[in-house]
Amino acid sequence: METRPDLQAGSTNYDIVIVGAGPVGLMLSTCLSRWGYKIKHIDNRAEPTPTGRADGIQPRSLDLLRNMGLKSAIMAHKPARVYEVAFWDPPKNGKGIVRTGTWASCPSFIDARYPFTTLLHQGLIERVFIGDLEKNGVQVQRPWTIAGFKSDEKENPEYPVEVRLEHVDGTASEVVRAKYLFGGEGARSFIRNQLGIGMTHKDPISNVWGVMDGVVNTDFPDIKMKCTIHSDHGSIMVIPRENNMVRLYIQIATSTDPDFNPRKSATVEEVQASAKKILAPYTIEWERVEWYSVYPIGQGIADKYTLDHRVFLGGDACHTHSPKAGQGMNTAFLDALNLAWKIHLVERGFAVRELLTTYEPERKDVAENLLAFDNKYAKLFSQRPPAANEVQAASQNATKDSDDNEFIKTFKESCEFTSGYGVAYKPNSLNWSESHPAQSHVIHPKGTKLRTGRLFMNADVTRVVDANVVHLEQEIPLNGSFRIFIFAGKPAVTATALKDLASYMSKKGSFYSSFLRPDVDAVSHHERHNPHSWFFSICTVFAAPRSSVEISRDLPELLARYREHVYADDRWDRRALDAQAAAHAKMGLDQEKGGVVVVRPDGYVGMVTELVEGSGTVDALNQYFGAFCTKKLGETMAQL
Amino acid sequence: METRPDLQAGSTNYDIVIVGAGPVGLMLSTCLSRWGYKIKHIDNRAEPTPTGRADGIQPRSLDLLRNMGLKSAIMAHKPARVYEVAFWDPPKNGKGIVRTGTWASCPSFIDARYPFTTLLHQGLIERVFIGDLEKNGVQVQRPWTIAGFKSDEKENPEYPVEVRLEHVDGTASEVVRAKYLFGGEGARSFIRNQLGIGMTHKDPISNVWGVMDGVVNTDFPDIKMKCTIHSDHGSIMVIPRENNMVRLYIQIATSTDPDFNPRKSATVEEVQASAKKILAPYTIEWERVEWYSVYPIGQGIADKYTLDHRVFLGGDACHTHSPKAGQGMNTAFLDALNLAWKIHLVERGFAVRELLTTYEPERKDVAENLLAFDNKYAKLFSQRPPAANEVQAASQNATKDSDDNEFIKTFKESCEFTSGYGVAYKPNSLNWSESHPAQSHVIHPKGTKLRTGRLFMNADVTRVVDANVVHLEQEIPLNGSFRIFIFAGKPAVTATALKDLASYMSKKGSFYSSFLRPDVDAVSHHERHNPHSWFFSICTVFAAPRSSVEISRDLPELLARYREHVYADDRWDRRALDAQAAAHAKMGLDQEKGGVVVVRPDGYVGMVTELVEGSGTVDALNQYFGAFCTKKLGETMAQL
Repeated sequence: METRPDLQAGSTNYDIVIVGAGPVGLMLSTCLSRWGYKIKHIDNRAEPTPTGRADGIQPRSLDLLRNMGLKSAIMAHKPARVYEVAFWDPPKNGKGIVRTGTWASCPSFIDARYPFTTLLHQGLIERVFIGDLEKNGVQVQRPWTIAGFKSDEKENPEYPVEVRLEHVDGTASEVVRAKYLFGGEGARSFIRNQLGIGMTHKDPISNVWGVMDGVVNTDFPDIKMKCTIHSDHGSIMVIPRENNMVRLYIQIATSTDPDFNPRKSATVEEVQASAKKILAPYTIEWERVEWYSVYPIGQGIADKYTLDHRVFLGGDACHTHSPKAGQGMNTAFLDALNLAWKIHLVERGFAVRELLTTYEPERKDVAENLLAFDNKYAKLFSQRPPAANEVQAASQNATKDSDDNEFIKTFKESCEFTSGYGVAYKPNSLNWSESHPAQSHVIHPKGTKLRTGRLFMNADVTRVVDANVVHLEQEIPLNGSFRIFIFAGKPAVTATALKDLASYMSKKGSFYSSFLRPDVDAVSHHERHNPHSWFFSICTVFAAPRSSVEISRDLPELLARYREHVYADDRWDRRALDAQAAAHAKMGLDQEKGGVVVVRPDGYVGMVTELVEGSGTVDALNQYFGAFCTKKLGETMAQL
Repeated sequence: METRPDLQAGSTNYDIVIVGAGPVGLMLSTCLSRWGYKIKHIDNRAEPTPTGRADGIQPRSLDLLRNMGLKSAIMAHKPARVYEVAFWDPPKNGKGIVRTGTWASCPSFIDARYPFTTLLHQGLIERVFIGDLEKNGVQVQRPWTIAGFKSDEKENPEYPVEVRLEHVDGTASEVVRAKYLFGGEGARSFIRNQLGIGMTHKDPISNVWGVMDGVVNTDFPDIKMKCTIHSDHGSIMVIPRENNMVRLYIQIATSTDPDFNPRKSATVEEVQASAKKILAPYTIEWERVEWYSVYPIGQGIADKYTLDHRVFLGGDACHTHSPKAGQGMNTAFLDALNLAWKIHLVERGFAVRELLTTYEPERKDVAENLLAFDNKYAKLFSQRPPAANEVQAASQNATKDSDDNEFIKTFKESCEFTSGYGVAYKPNSLNWSESHPAQSHVIHPKGTKLRTGRLFMNADVTRVVDANVVHLEQEIPLNGSFRIFIFAGKPAVTATALKDLASYMSKKGSFYSSFLRPDVDAVSHHERHNPHSWFFSICTVFAAPRSSVEISRDLPELLARYREHVYADDRWDRRALDAQAAAHAKMGLDQEKGGVVVVRPDGYVGMVTELVEGSGTVDALNQYFGAFCTKKLGETMAQL
């Protein structure tokens, strides 16, 4: 990135002040620090989370962590992996509990790389981010808190936000200016309160939960599985953890109880006694309790995520819900990611400031869905078990009839959502639809199976230069750039289209020519991802065997420059058994003529176009990017 | 492991003195330190290898590193991965070089988990082992060297080896006693020389090689691939490295040259000039040279690996050969592994001391094969390119005719060998054959595809307790124990056989009862691998869907104790498409009735038996283990 004079040591001007070093703050900080921004990051805790709290990394979040190069550091802690969820209920006749079914937590209809939930103590996850931040020179300032702020673009258009920070014991304070302020302080957000943003409660019911992490000795056979257990003595949820630990969630009180008291509590011993009753006839004893907490929780969603697009909120400051679906940290990660690259695109001069207005609707919609899901799920979970005649006889294989159980039905329907693959951003300038300004007939060709606003599909391909088998969707790291995937079909068929693509990209006024790096002529030949521009990275995928692809012959020079991002779609895929080119086929792209896919920096599909001869494809790309870019694109095409 | 009085601080008695901290010494040290042995480990270098030297980790070695939990630390360095090898030769007509074919370096006929070679600078690999050693309290003492030793079992039966060690600058020395001494000092082994063990040269030809690691700028399209390039101007081998580096091997002189001088050298500039000529018409420029070395090398193999089974040699001290097949480090790893567990079995009282006599023949045989291969391969490589009419026209797809090229033919034939999967230990007390003392009719049932003395096959299975999809062959870590895989077929069919298996195992005089842990009644319920004995670990694999397996119902208590090692053979496998139970099918075991596979601690198959009702299976196991165990096994069976 460019060297910037405002990044000098000693200046109290920052690109962003981030308050809170939980998952949302750390993800935002990590992204922006990698992309060269100056960050003040504070947290009012003296240390990262020592025990307990959120611990579920969903499949899509693991994709994201891998894309950031952080997955192996997470996996080094040997987290538990949940592949299946077991349901236990009272038997039709008799006492105790029986397993009434098990379901994949990320079933194969979801084409996930990692079809499991990864369970690891939040503090270990935080430390992975903190370690990465330190490599980029960012130190979380602890224990510091925010004491006040104001935001005024008129007073200071460049650094409109003034923030007052204080050591928690009041012994020190400082005032800094920033372009942005981010509140990732959790449910009791000071910034949200100061802004006067209210919380709306989707459901008036609130619950008091007990949660206990510990090491147990039990003959309950599913102690290493995620389980939801309903019994005549109450309900618990079992979640395996790293280091032989298990987490139990137990509901202590609910606002529908006649004598509900939101301050109701329970001791460790009371919760253990309860768990023993629920698990009978199985036995359970605790060898060690690592963490125990009781907390009341209701569903809430912030009315706004920002007022002025300078001060933003994310994570638990925006949405609270029951912990059981394991969505908190994952939603927080994706809030931060969504905001990070939009700030980046605006601050680097690629996108108009209005791009920031897409943060709230995209993420608030996800939070609404989460709460609707949680509401339905939590209610079912809190209910007394269904009547005996509704309960399925314990069966070894889950039967079709199990769908009659509303709880299981909800769970199954929600798999895509809980795995993180259900996020579907609605049409806007980034997510093409029929009402998008880009309206070429080559856009969104018939047959495409990619859906704009949803994650790009996974695909195995062979990298041409080194014959490595790679995960195409992971080939561009999280670099803040748009990802342009040129599915180039058969080289003999698309030769002219590729030549034309490069040629029209090179013309003045194209998305390519308009956003070249200022140092484009001095870029090292080792630069793989951004040799031309920080705005985009390019991958080309031929529907041909690797050994038949000759990069210097089959690609025009501009595209050949991305030689380490040229692939052969020659891998076998169980999901496209009959296809010659499985990745093309899975995505519904023509195996001869190919197509071009624009993927947002966060991995969601922005637009799909045909790959055609002439200017059509570049025209479509210019129209798409032109909908939110700072420069008018493609206007001069006709003349050139 | 048990606490041992001789492990006290201050004692100068060691279990083993290891000289040399290259791959062979470090592997031995790492294994033995994990298994509780007291080690003195010295190296005459002040630091681990700083640059260059061996760098190729073959597929089978990567399996081993994973089994040791060290793979992710290796992979964190982002090594290069070689999936294919390209062959370049002069064109039929005209000048320069053309690609005449590419071949998978570990083709799919080898069922490898990691079908690629991993390339990483030796020093980084050494540091991964050193880090692990330090966790177990072993510090390599540097720069220290061995000044002398003597071995006399009569003088001191417990610690027969006396070793004199010195600081390399002569300022300090010490004398220690040990049960074993290991020479992993490389080609110029002091210990080998002191023992008077000669080297036999398979091939009188020796060569002078130049090797250069550096960062280049080139338009040669296969610079990220492993290539063997023959041209009218000489031959080179290209090997990609981490951090954009590339290694070039170039032959500077050979003893068949009329004016051969084994001290012939070449400067960096001379080698670069040579490489430029060979690669023409492609261009190459060096941006940086990280390491450059010229060394003469001949093929040699030590006549003995040990004289008294107290002082052992391994690695380059036993075999030298050309560096190009990338076998040095891999063979060293497997030398050390082979010795480590045999010492362990003897020292823990499980196996008779004669077991140690299997080290030399097993490993020397591998070295002989390696040299025969290297000889053939190196000769071809050193030859002038074949006459024009022998050279295939450059073809996009390797054609059948390419087999006519002797060089490529040798390469292909040797893939299994070079990937590490070709190691086939010959019959002895560990590797069952028709001449083994164990001669029950249930042994080695018809149809089994497992070969004794060869690696156990890979298989995906589902772990029953947590529904995790796992690699069966990796489920027992490298713990020095035999691995008993009970393929249990269909639960309804094998119920009695399993009950009988457990029941006869429990009888006095069985391999099970004879080698119980002294602390067996106090073992934590969290112990997964060795709840009963350090001599073996047990896995059970049912040919049934995971959800249908109920451990407490389907397994007798003894086997159910290994509940975290109970699996369902319910995963789909491309290599056994029609099978209901793919792992059973791949291994040629009956999908109804199962079978039992004994795998040596190093992963090689020892014996396969049927799983039968009555005492037959345990009788066979007792006979097998009885061939090398310290106790008479199974003699009392008939009476009980």
